[in-house]
Amino acid sequence: MKLQSIRKEYKLSVLDESSISKNPLKQFEEWLNESFKAKVPEPTAMSVASIGLNGFPESRIVLLKDFNRDGFTFFTNYNSNKGKSIAKNPSVGLHFFWPELERQIRISGIAEKTPDEISDKYFISRPELSQIAAIVSNQSSKIKSREKLTKLFDEEKSKLKPFKRPDYWGGYVVKPIRYEFWQGRENRLHDRIIYEKENGNWNISRLAP
Amino acid sequence: MKLQSIRKEYKLSVLDESSISKNPLKQFEEWLNESFKAKVPEPTAMSVASIGLNGFPESRIVLLKDFNRDGFTFFTNYNSNKGKSIAKNPSVGLHFFWPELERQIRISGIAEKTPDEISDKYFISRPELSQIAAIVSNQSSKIKSREKLTKLFDEEKSKLKPFKRPDYWGGYVVKPIRYEFWQGRENRLHDRIIYEKENGNWNISRLAP
Repeated sequence: MKLQSIRKEYKLSVLDESSISKNPLKQFEEWLNESFKAKVPEPTAMSVASIGLNGFPESRIVLLKDFNRDGFTFFTNYNSNKGKSIAKNPSVGLHFFWPELERQIRISGIAEKTPDEISDKYFISRPELSQIAAIVSNQSSKIKSREKLTKLFDEEKSKLKPFKRPDYWGGYVVKPIRYEFWQGRENRLHDRIIYEKENGNWNISRLAP
Repeated sequence: MKLQSIRKEYKLSVLDESSISKNPLKQFEEWLNESFKAKVPEPTAMSVASIGLNGFPESRIVLLKDFNRDGFTFFTNYNSNKGKSIAKNPSVGLHFFWPELERQIRISGIAEKTPDEISDKYFISRPELSQIAAIVSNQSSKIKSREKLTKLFDEEKSKLKPFKRPDYWGGYVVKPIRYEFWQGRENRLHDRIIYEKENGNWNISRLAP
């Protein structure tokens, strides 16, 4: 397969200092709204990068479930590789990529567990079968076979409802210290605008592409 | 914006031990081929996670330009944040996400610079205007304005051809030590198959979702 010649010119849009919001959260909201309007396949999908227990940086997709002045929230199993790596080092990177809009958003921040009430509330809002999956799956552990997992699933399904959130499952909220908004441009002269927090204020700069 | 209820059931496909390749590179090639066939918008786009000089894991999109038994190759500016972080710690994570196929591929590996001949060969294969952009952009450094960048670009463009690859621009090849293939499934009971290198062989396991 010949990959080297695969490239496309990015010409859809422009990102400049005069039109961006002074507030990165507002800028984020605007771009997220535009990704919904553009009907990208999974607008809330973001990759979460953490530093694994083996020292390797690793990322995986999670769905963004809330964002506001407190940060960006997602839910997972606290005993997963992701959970263990965050327990050891709460520095994480969030990354949205919307090729249909030729855009990326990158956020560096510190993750902390959401309060139990938030995790409970979200857990019970999920479809019941997803609740069961969260209960029976010891996320990221090795399992002998898929059949073993579906057996546990069926056993749990036959139990009395309502299902309760297990203490090993819940949310993280990531408090940003840095944002980057990236808009692809022609000839690889992309627009990159960053926000860095200093003394409670967001400083805005442009980076070379 | 109410994000909590945004979810979709993944039902497109299945990943199981009986049908996967024993060789993760072959399995990768198969899925990459299928992403081309499915016409995903940027099939060669992958996020590269590294550990930044500030200690935060961070990822960004690059295009995969080659893959073979030696590893996975991409090109960049060696003085970019990405280049500096790899110089300090060559452990990286590669991550492909194809929502149209409900698939992810995650690779952990060690990055090293490609030989000069490889970087030269790829550099001159790029469109001339992209070559100029690589020469004039001090990637990831702060710049005063876009105008400053385009002025440098225009100056360089007026110079004599052919353009030469600058020594601060070139490739990395990432040698995998671990692969994960992820296929979304119904009720969040996703299929996750990993390959881990041990004594030169690839061991295959299934992870709980």
